[in-house]
Formats: sequence, structure tokens, C-alpha cells
Amino acid sequence: MSNDQIITLAHGAGGEAMQQLIDKLFLKAFNDKPLRQKEDQARVPLAELHAKGNRLALTTDSYVVSPLFFPGGDIGKLAVCGTLNDLAVGGAQPLYLSAGFIIEEGLSLTLLEEIVYSMAKTAKEQGVSIITGDTKVVERGMADKLFINTTGVGVIPQSIQLSAANARPGDKILVSGFIGNHGATVMLARDNLGLHSDLQSDCAALYPLINQLLLQHTHDIRCIRDVTRGGIGGVLSEIAQASNITIELDEVALPVRSQTRGICELLGLDPLFLANEGLAVFVVGPQHAETVLQLMQQHPLGQHAQIVGEVTAFSINHLHLKTRYGARRIVNVPYGLQLPRIC
Amino acid sequence: MSNDQIITLAHGAGGEAMQQLIDKLFLKAFNDKPLRQKEDQARVPLAELHAKGNRLALTTDSYVVSPLFFPGGDIGKLAVCGTLNDLAVGGAQPLYLSAGFIIEEGLSLTLLEEIVYSMAKTAKEQGVSIITGDTKVVERGMADKLFINTTGVGVIPQSIQLSAANARPGDKILVSGFIGNHGATVMLARDNLGLHSDLQSDCAALYPLINQLLLQHTHDIRCIRDVTRGGIGGVLSEIAQASNITIELDEVALPVRSQTRGICELLGLDPLFLANEGLAVFVVGPQHAETVLQLMQQHPLGQHAQIVGEVTAFSINHLHLKTRYGARRIVNVPYGLQLPRIC
Repeated sequence: MSNDQIITLAHGAGGEAMQQLIDKLFLKAFNDKPLRQKEDQARVPLAELHAKGNRLALTTDSYVVSPLFFPGGDIGKLAVCGTLNDLAVGGAQPLYLSAGFIIEEGLSLTLLEEIVYSMAKTAKEQGVSIITGDTKVVERGMADKLFINTTGVGVIPQSIQLSAANARPGDKILVSGFIGNHGATVMLARDNLGLHSDLQSDCAALYPLINQLLLQHTHDIRCIRDVTRGGIGGVLSEIAQASNITIELDEVALPVRSQTRGICELLGLDPLFLANEGLAVFVVGPQHAETVLQLMQQHPLGQHAQIVGEVTAFSINHLHLKTRYGARRIVNVPYGLQLPRIC
Repeated sequence: MSNDQIITLAHGAGGEAMQQLIDKLFLKAFNDKPLRQKEDQARVPLAELHAKGNRLALTTDSYVVSPLFFPGGDIGKLAVCGTLNDLAVGGAQPLYLSAGFIIEEGLSLTLLEEIVYSMAKTAKEQGVSIITGDTKVVERGMADKLFINTTGVGVIPQSIQLSAANARPGDKILVSGFIGNHGATVMLARDNLGLHSDLQSDCAALYPLINQLLLQHTHDIRCIRDVTRGGIGGVLSEIAQASNITIELDEVALPVRSQTRGICELLGLDPLFLANEGLAVFVVGPQHAETVLQLMQQHPLGQHAQIVGEVTAFSINHLHLKTRYGARRIVNVPYGLQLPRIC
């Protein structure tokens, strides 16, 4: 397709233009067998799934991030990594993705191609197939350039029983890396701020790290959650609520890049609630927390991992922060949050 | 939730407001066990799926229909029926759905509730569970009220082998009812036309009809496709291409409501390319086409079914129309189509 083409309403209307877009862009980029068969649904053998575990995992996310490209990623990479991470934190091996595109009339075809090939590359690196899709085009002004929905299918091995309801007093809270990088990066990438830094989004697929840890510590790891919208504060509050426990976080132990901290201070934001897209928290039994941490730090996705807190009590259902000055305060999840359209 | 509330950016930001929306609206309406567990992914036992067949079917669609409500349906009902139909036409029993909402800031909460409960009702009627979901909110003017993505999971029984590539000369083409009703209805529901009628969208889930026909005619039915964007002309062209055959349609046999025909004549549209949302075409072996037709006509979803054409030759890869005046012409699928945002 030539460089100066744009998406028109015809590309979403079910006629020849849409068929051409499907054939020349989506089928070429994704190039998976069930997709090439062009049936109304992709079909995969259940025996192959069943050989990998005993539960199917299903998760969906729509991505509306603005801008579409940011340091460390783009909406396509994000749409693959984000959904794969939601499978991986349940202990599932991610296998298949669907992809639904809502495109604003007038989007550059070159830009769409770049995003689609970014999705294809990320999926391929993770051994995941994009097997079914959908394209809709809406009139100018009726969407903001491009929204992508991905739905992921994975399989959870029988031995794995992760749940946000599993945390108990004494458990340690581990975080796999620096907090807040994605949120700070996207904020800086928006035109209207005028700040500059070399911060990058942490956008990454976490299955390789999670899988290695689970293989060696299946029963010591109680719960894994990826930290996205809502930040580490949001996700730990959810775990505290699901397990009916109190978590105490140690502010000094939290890995925050100095640039992220600087942006937060400048703009009055709290890194506890900044979004991430390649970060997970782990709740680990006390006996093996140090071993799990060391393993994590040896993996490229967990080099900056830290133990950042512990479960202190049953039945309180709160998140506490021990500040750098030794005081303790309750962390309340804000009603709304700091940034819209971060993922 | 009170009547005068609207959706704000906070409802999509991952904080307390989003949790309240999830708890008070989505969990209440959909109320399925995997959803209530509020993990990052829904989990379902693979053994239960495997007991129903040997292939998993996966399909996705984003719904951007305008207006959100139209005679015979709304975007919620459409988002459930449309995706279930894409499973059913592959012979799959639809089992699970994911639901991803992209909401424009300022949408009435009452309106969202009405749509969400319409989805819940339609899914329940079809015995399907909505087991995982996602909510994003974008700023005013960055989306048109509401877009919904649904991804469907079903299982195909071992005995069923449907494919658009299966049609062969002599096969009959059956259509399950009137063509073009959805397209004509949505067109009339748009403010700017000023025409009135009692036409209704055919929006319906077709699995009950398809399942009954497949149970009795597993091997006589070669291919089923639901007729949506692109109309019957679009879908039969796809079958002709996939099977490398010529299909001849009989214009006189095509079931078209007089009101749909009238709207088409007035606006210069072709009912062959008008959208439908509860209609399927069946390619059936010649020996059993009449029996399948009679069975179809006995079912509420197939009362107006007709045999509308046949496969006439291999290797030509065309769709022909025998007009009401006896002439034959090649039907070319338009580059774009008549209406944007019909589903």
C-alpha cells in the first residue's frame, strides 16, 4: 500500500475495500493459519489446549492510550503485552489473541501498518498467535485515531492456584521493578507538558519471568498481579480487599526512578498510583521470599525487583505505608486517578 | 445509581469510581462466577469444554452502531447476538463472552445501565456467560457515546465440518429470512432521514435454529454464514471465492419485505448489500435442501426462509443474479458499502 493512503469509511463497510485491507495488511502481518482460513471464527484443537493444563483463561482489554506512540512502545505493543500479562499473572500460558480495531476515518495507513506490525512482532516474540479479528471505521471526530481491543486465551497448568484471595499474614510483597515509568512516560509524551527526559515505558510481556518463577516456586507464590491503571497502590488495595488482610508497604524499599520521582514532585502526583505496563507484584510465603527475589533479579524483566512490604494482619482490609520518616499512614485509593487514557 | 449521573473520566481510571461502577453495574448485571472473582482473567474448566466437542471457536467484533437504540434492538443486544452468531455459524455451541466498553465521558449512566442489562438479558436467554470485561472512558468528543467489543468462545462438536470452502456445483443456497431489515431499520432510525415505517431490525441469536438443523443434517449442510455488513451479496461472494465456484441467485426468490424494498428504491440502495443481524445463509447438498428448508420454516427464526439460488459451476468464482425479468448479470461487491456504522 502506498505511503499517502488514509483509512476511509469504505475500509470498514464490509465491501471490497475492507477485504483488501484484511488481505494486504492484517493477514500479511499476522499470517496465522486460523486467520488465513477467513471463517467467521477461528478454530483450535481442544486437545492441544488440554495437554497444557486444566483451565482455560480468558481476558479482554481495550486500549485507548494517547498518544499512539510513546518512548518504549506504541498502542500495538501495549495491546499485545497488556492482555498477555493479564493471562500470565493467573499462571496461564498465553496462546491466542483476538484483535478488534476501531479506526477513525482519515488515519494514515502507514501509521496503522506500523502499529499492526508492532503487534505482530510482539505476539511472535511471545509465541502467541493472533487468530481472529475485526475492523470498524467511524467518521472523523467520532473516535480518537485508533482504539484496539485484544482478548487473550491461555491455559493454566493444574498445579497452579493463584488468587488475590490467597494472601495471609507474614507473606512478603515483591515488586518486579521500578514503579510508575509507564505513567510518567505517557504523561511526558503528551504535547502540552513541555518537559523532557529519557524515561521509557516499561511496556513488556511478563510471561517469561512469571513462568520461570512459577516453575520453581509453584506453591510459595500465592498471588501475582500486573500493575497497570491504578498503580501499585490500586492493585495492592484490591489484594488486601480480596484476602481481607492489611498490607504494610515500606516507602524506602519502593523502587522509583529519580526521574519518575521528579515528575511526580513537579506535578503533585503519587508514584503509588502511576500506571505501569510491564510490572507485577507477587505475594510470596515468608520462607521463600528472598529466594524468589534473587531469582527475579537474575531475570532481565526483574533486575530491579524488591521486597517492598508484607501482610501484617487478617481482617483489617487496608493498605498502610511506612513512610521514609518512619510514620505510618493509611493509603486510600483515589476516587478517580491522575491520568486518563494511559493504556 | 441515581438517574442523573453521568460517566466521568474517573470511571475509567482504575480508582474507587471504577471499582464502584464494576461492582454496582457490571457485576450485578452479568453476575457470573468467574466475573465475581475479580481476577485479571476468567478461568473455566477445560474438561467441561472438551466434553462438548473437539475444537475451541474464538471470534471477536467491535460494535459501533449509531444510533445506540433502534427498533428491534440496541447496541447491547447486537453486541451479544452478533458475536454469538459468528460462533454458531461455525457449528460451535456458544459458551462464554468477554465484554470491553469504550465510553465517551458524559454518557448517561441510566443509558449505560439499560444497554448493559440488555446484554445480560440476551446472554442469559442464550445460556451464555459474560465472564470477563474491561471499561475505558475517553474524553468528550474522543468517541461517539459508546463502543462495545465482545469476544466469544464456543466449542465445535467433532462431527461438524462446516467451511466456506465446502460448496460444490448442484448445492442449494438457503437464506433463513427477509434480507436487509437491519440495514433499512438503522438507516430510518438516523435522525436525518425523516422517513417512518414499522420495520424492525432482525437482531437475533441464531444458535437455536442452527443447532436444530445441524443435529438432523450434520453432513448435508456444507457451510453456514451469518449475513451482516456486506449483506447477502457480500457473504455469497466470499463463499464463491473460498470454494472457487459460481453461485446463481434468483432475484424472484429473495425474501425482501416490501418496506425494505421501498426504502431501497427511494434511496437507490440494493437490498443484496444491506446489513442483517439475525440472518444466515446455508449451502446445502441438493438431495436434502427441501427438507432442510421445511425444518427451517418450522422454526421461529426461519419462518420466512427460502431457497434463493444454487451453485452452478466450479472455477469461475462469481456471483450471478437471475433478475425478475429473466436476464443474468454478474453481481460485483461494491468497493465501499452503503452505510457506515450499521453494527
